[in-house]
Amino acid sequence: MLTLHNYFRSSTSTRLRAALNLKGLDYDYRPVSLLKAEQKAPGFLARNPAGLVPVLELGDGTCLTQSLAIIEYLDETHPEPPLLPADALGRARVRGLAYMIACEVHPLNNLRVLQFIASQYGADDAGKAAWFRHWVAETFGALETTLAASPETGIFCHGDTPGLADLCLYAQVWNNRRFDVDQSGYPTINRIFEALDGIEAFSRAAPPAQPDAV
Amino acid sequence: MLTLHNYFRSSTSTRLRAALNLKGLDYDYRPVSLLKAEQKAPGFLARNPAGLVPVLELGDGTCLTQSLAIIEYLDETHPEPPLLPADALGRARVRGLAYMIACEVHPLNNLRVLQFIASQYGADDAGKAAWFRHWVAETFGALETTLAASPETGIFCHGDTPGLADLCLYAQVWNNRRFDVDQSGYPTINRIFEALDGIEAFSRAAPPAQPDAV
Repeated sequence: MLTLHNYFRSSTSTRLRAALNLKGLDYDYRPVSLLKAEQKAPGFLARNPAGLVPVLELGDGTCLTQSLAIIEYLDETHPEPPLLPADALGRARVRGLAYMIACEVHPLNNLRVLQFIASQYGADDAGKAAWFRHWVAETFGALETTLAASPETGIFCHGDTPGLADLCLYAQVWNNRRFDVDQSGYPTINRIFEALDGIEAFSRAAPPAQPDAV
Repeated sequence: MLTLHNYFRSSTSTRLRAALNLKGLDYDYRPVSLLKAEQKAPGFLARNPAGLVPVLELGDGTCLTQSLAIIEYLDETHPEPPLLPADALGRARVRGLAYMIACEVHPLNNLRVLQFIASQYGADDAGKAAWFRHWVAETFGALETTLAASPETGIFCHGDTPGLADLCLYAQVWNNRRFDVDQSGYPTINRIFEALDGIEAFSRAAPPAQPDAV
């Protein structure tokens, strides 16, 4: 049995929940409250010294960390349905789209960074929201351009089956909603989000659907 | 022939140069000065709408973006020497180590973020260095603990052949040097860096060895 240590609102957790759902894998949901700093408690640090969610604990106690590394592991060990295209160029495109979000947007906008700019620079709620929206805009404009311009974009980010890039896009748009990001300039991203939200594996992974949602 | 659009000091560029060297792939080096904002020029944006280096241009003009996506592509299309272990759990470990740097440290510390905290919050050079060192410390402590504790760590991050995680570690330590990061708490990381620096594929990829180095 798999155990998922995660937090309803964490976007990296949302990605991973959707991947587990797409693969048809059951898991025991263990909430880790980032607001209560439970990810810094000794019990959690023994599972992941970095003090970050999500952690996927395998049946033998092995703890996997970093959402994208876990998702690649799931895709290798449970190949159906595939989360990456069959061809190397397609895989490079999908990973590139995924990393636009995972390496350019999310790392700048997670809770610990927002808390740090508050403590370090006195950013208030409006300042934190402005910071969040700045980094979304920096990348989402290019992501929209890239998706809209490519014949490889289909119902989803790459063709007509959801994959790695869609997992990241879906989770990030949920995050954007919390900070009232103006999504009007991103029609392709919005269209893909709505298509994903119509899939039960995704909607069941959404933050409000989790047992620890408040 | 491959064309590498990159910048000597960009840590994502350093990763990719070392990967190309390990694979024995020749490339035409095209400098893109981030200080002169050449990555925002129309000619470059046509290659990567995100305005980020590196971009690897293939012989047919196809432009690949996002260093880790390109490195996975190189590993799939040129399997020798492999940059990831043969087993799925080993690959999850190596990708997890790589993403600790690529998703937790580097995104917070690249030039555009340092420029933004200067313009937004008035951070001076000392403030930018403090920001840089904060995010290194947040992750490098855990990275050191993880590497030091695991029997899977060898001469390099995973066993005795350099791979994906080593590419990220090598480039990040070069970055750390620029901001006088105190590396004394990271003996395992330092030992691995020195071992990597003894390999010509890595040392030839280092920032000072590039034609645009200043």
